[in-house]
Amino acid sequence: MHVAIPLYRRFTALDVAGPYTVLNMAPGFSVTLVAAERGLVSDDWGTFRLEATASYDEVPAPDVIMVPGGTGTLDALSDEALVGWIRQAHRHTRWTTSVCTGSLLLGAAGILKGLPATGHWALLDMLKQYGAEPVSSRVVTTGKIVTAAGVSAGIDMALTLLAEAADEATAQAVQLAIEYDPEPPFTSGSLRGAPEGIPDRALHLLTDVPA
Amino acid sequence: MHVAIPLYRRFTALDVAGPYTVLNMAPGFSVTLVAAERGLVSDDWGTFRLEATASYDEVPAPDVIMVPGGTGTLDALSDEALVGWIRQAHRHTRWTTSVCTGSLLLGAAGILKGLPATGHWALLDMLKQYGAEPVSSRVVTTGKIVTAAGVSAGIDMALTLLAEAADEATAQAVQLAIEYDPEPPFTSGSLRGAPEGIPDRALHLLTDVPA
Repeated sequence: MHVAIPLYRRFTALDVAGPYTVLNMAPGFSVTLVAAERGLVSDDWGTFRLEATASYDEVPAPDVIMVPGGTGTLDALSDEALVGWIRQAHRHTRWTTSVCTGSLLLGAAGILKGLPATGHWALLDMLKQYGAEPVSSRVVTTGKIVTAAGVSAGIDMALTLLAEAADEATAQAVQLAIEYDPEPPFTSGSLRGAPEGIPDRALHLLTDVPA
Repeated sequence: MHVAIPLYRRFTALDVAGPYTVLNMAPGFSVTLVAAERGLVSDDWGTFRLEATASYDEVPAPDVIMVPGGTGTLDALSDEALVGWIRQAHRHTRWTTSVCTGSLLLGAAGILKGLPATGHWALLDMLKQYGAEPVSSRVVTTGKIVTAAGVSAGIDMALTLLAEAADEATAQAVQLAIEYDPEPPFTSGSLRGAPEGIPDRALHLLTDVPA
């Protein structure tokens, strides 16, 4: 299974590295980081510069695509090189996946019409603009499309995907290899568990990023 | 708070990106990826090539160091540029932290003698070689040293650290911003929860990485 993860300016590092690490570890899976052109692409803060080792043209038909989110997603929605690649690649994929605001890019590619999908809570309702039905779940699977909630949900998504795309024992072995036995220190990982005032602070953190 | 994360050949991508994303998001925190020399450093599989934007010499006294693990840790134990930097930087840090096998590098730097520490389950006992007391916990804090269990535990560690180094509301806001409300698909994230046969498969995944 060849997995392609597109990088675009101001992606979120954890959106990429979670699914990357999980999927690359599975026997028979390999992950390639792609972009419009080969070379370094900068994350939300410009301090995590990651190399795209292939261009979109070089990877036209991967088995799996995994579209990350980031503070750059809203700008990327009008990036026809990226959105066009997603649209074309999706025709041939075995699985088309996203984490966080990456689902908006699947929407912009026109592949979520009439379908349930999830994404980061802060922009979940924006999925309606693309005819999708926003669902507040950790991972949403509909046919070959698998979308995940914000940032860290990419780990859950990738393990869920592995159980389908490989088998449960493979997913379980990867989960143990990355020691994914989470102990979040607070209940504030979701809107329903966050104390009063925390959602506003979180939104501030997400929007107060230098352009 | 200036956080430095050292990169070395065959680091694990998620070990770096988890704490990086959590800590960089907190107001007043900034993270720099460092290495022996500026330039690209490759992960476990050579397919995640990340830029170190400063050399060890350029960042001699960060407030926080966060040492990642990876399949390259055992080789890195004899990398005196890295281990010496950890030893020197630790003298000035407010916090010295690690995730996964990164704690072995803290041990090699001689700063874990007589102290409890954790790390990836597969190499946890190796901490004894450095006079540390291996503890099978998600996050272990002893004075200014904070060690985490394998790979994904870096997220829990960084949020725990933020609650101390900043305040609880900041940690809670970051946890919501990265939507860290985990739903692991299986119970196999720890040795005690993994079904029979899965630990052997996980060990195979961790060691069957091309050099």
